Amino acid sequence: MAVDVAQLVGRAREGKPRAVARLITLVEGASPQLREVMAALAPLCGNAYVVGLTGSPGVGKSTSTSALVTAYRKAGKRVAVLAVDPSSPFSGGALLGDRVRMSEHASDPGVYIRSMATRGHLGGLAWAAPQAIRVLDAAGFDVVLVETVGVGQSEVEIAAQADTAAVLLAPGMGDGIQAAKAGILEIGDVYVVNKADREGADATARELNHMLGLGEARQPGDWRPPIVRTVAARGEGVDELVEALEKHRAWMDEHGVLAERRARRAAGEIEAIAVTALRERIGDLRGDRRLGALAERILAGTLDPYAAADELVAGLTGD
Amino acid sequence: MAVDVAQLVGRAREGKPRAVARLITLVEGASPQLREVMAALAPLCGNAYVVGLTGSPGVGKSTSTSALVTAYRKAGKRVAVLAVDPSSPFSGGALLGDRVRMSEHASDPGVYIRSMATRGHLGGLAWAAPQAIRVLDAAGFDVVLVETVGVGQSEVEIAAQADTAAVLLAPGMGDGIQAAKAGILEIGDVYVVNKADREGADATARELNHMLGLGEARQPGDWRPPIVRTVAARGEGVDELVEALEKHRAWMDEHGVLAERRARRAAGEIEAIAVTALRERIGDLRGDRRLGALAERILAGTLDPYAAADELVAGLTGD
Repeated sequence: MAVDVAQLVGRAREGKPRAVARLITLVEGASPQLREVMAALAPLCGNAYVVGLTGSPGVGKSTSTSALVTAYRKAGKRVAVLAVDPSSPFSGGALLGDRVRMSEHASDPGVYIRSMATRGHLGGLAWAAPQAIRVLDAAGFDVVLVETVGVGQSEVEIAAQADTAAVLLAPGMGDGIQAAKAGILEIGDVYVVNKADREGADATARELNHMLGLGEARQPGDWRPPIVRTVAARGEGVDELVEALEKHRAWMDEHGVLAERRARRAAGEIEAIAVTALRERIGDLRGDRRLGALAERILAGTLDPYAAADELVAGLTGD
Repeated sequence: MAVDVAQLVGRAREGKPRAVARLITLVEGASPQLREVMAALAPLCGNAYVVGLTGSPGVGKSTSTSALVTAYRKAGKRVAVLAVDPSSPFSGGALLGDRVRMSEHASDPGVYIRSMATRGHLGGLAWAAPQAIRVLDAAGFDVVLVETVGVGQSEVEIAAQADTAAVLLAPGMGDGIQAAKAGILEIGDVYVVNKADREGADATARELNHMLGLGEARQPGDWRPPIVRTVAARGEGVDELVEALEKHRAWMDEHGVLAERRARRAAGEIEAIAVTALRERIGDLRGDRRLGALAERILAGTLDPYAAADELVAGLTGD
């Protein structure tokens, strides 16, 4: 059954969680209305501030995300959380049952929380997450927190899609070195040493400061990534974290970096969709019944294989 | 410098080896005249009988090929040999220096011999070999012998491109089992036990007969692959091999199988060219300067990523 997209978008903007969920499902899947939805969202986008939260398992990402939600809600902002799991093929709200720390926001109409799996997606993260962000943006959320589950390349990808990337660490266990290996130390706009009440927090911050070369001279106007200490479970340092994020946002606005990053995100999104479309056409070649007719014309000597390939490709792409 | 294609094709049809070589080079490479050459060849193709010779190293493929050249020359046919090496990136005549047994044909104007490497080719065998066959066909060779260097999948591919696939074995060393493993036992139209004067030739023929199920009942009109014994180095059994090949050709003609195989070869060729073209376009996406402009329109809210991807793909494919 066809959905009334305009009505659905209107409800999402009123903060109806079911309407938001429905829209994300529509952009996630291969819905026949996908293009209609995307077109309806386009003029409504560009207002949400997208923050990526990355870091190794155990650093307290979801606790920190929850604490940020609380802080932004206090400031009167509507907040959406997108928990992206690149290792899972299962999407949706059901997975959130175990996200205990998020449950305090469950009944808050100003908060929307969604798990998103990207394993099943053609094009993976590059394709799926930005489209969900687009829905949340169009639905009028002021802040979208994108939290990654898992480590490695996916975190770097998510960070590349955020306006601001927050990299979380925790004391002990050579966490800094692990983060450096995963390549996430290069992508942070803001660094967080969570669980800062634990032994080794000073050492972690020092190590981080050293690895980032934060002591080195920079060009005036350059962004100097701050290191914020938090104890997210008790809400300590969270206001300072919000302040650091907002400072980064203001700096990006001032220096044209925000528009640049968003243009890069949009370009990546276009590219992922286009590559997927071309790949599908390659798959379609094999089953194309025009192939037989073209082969017959080659046998008759009235066509050469290059001209035939041109016709085949034109037939697949000229829609 | 642009080549006069019509003149070159004319010379190739007169049997001038340099003209043939030049044409193959033009279809092998990314020459700007590639399409012009292919178009010029199209109406001249369809007369050559293409025989694929496959088998494990040591069975005497090039000796057998050379003996077949001699036999077909005696019958007044113009013969071309295409030695395809999928493991090498080097093409051309220079590699033939070590093909000692072929040297007897070097001064014969009715014989053309060419090595062809396919490792460097986009699309590999599926792309490169059929285009060279097309040149040799258009140049008026009556028989094109396609001999593979190396084993495995490439042999199956080459056989699929031939009108008739001859699978060579030699006595000893569990050759039959090796061939079965490589999957080439299923593709033979004619089987050859070469070095038939050696011990074990009877056992090899028996084993082959058993593995092929040649004793089993078949539908009337079905092709029953013969097993021919040869001692190619002394020319023994080669007339019988030619007879077996010609019988297969006549059977194919009678049953419409020849046209069917050639249509399949043409379809594979079209497909390989089309896939290569689409892959190149995927690569082009990344460097496309329209991407930035499209991203800006998304930021402005006047375009959605799907519509942008459509524009990008249309720009790349609508030429």
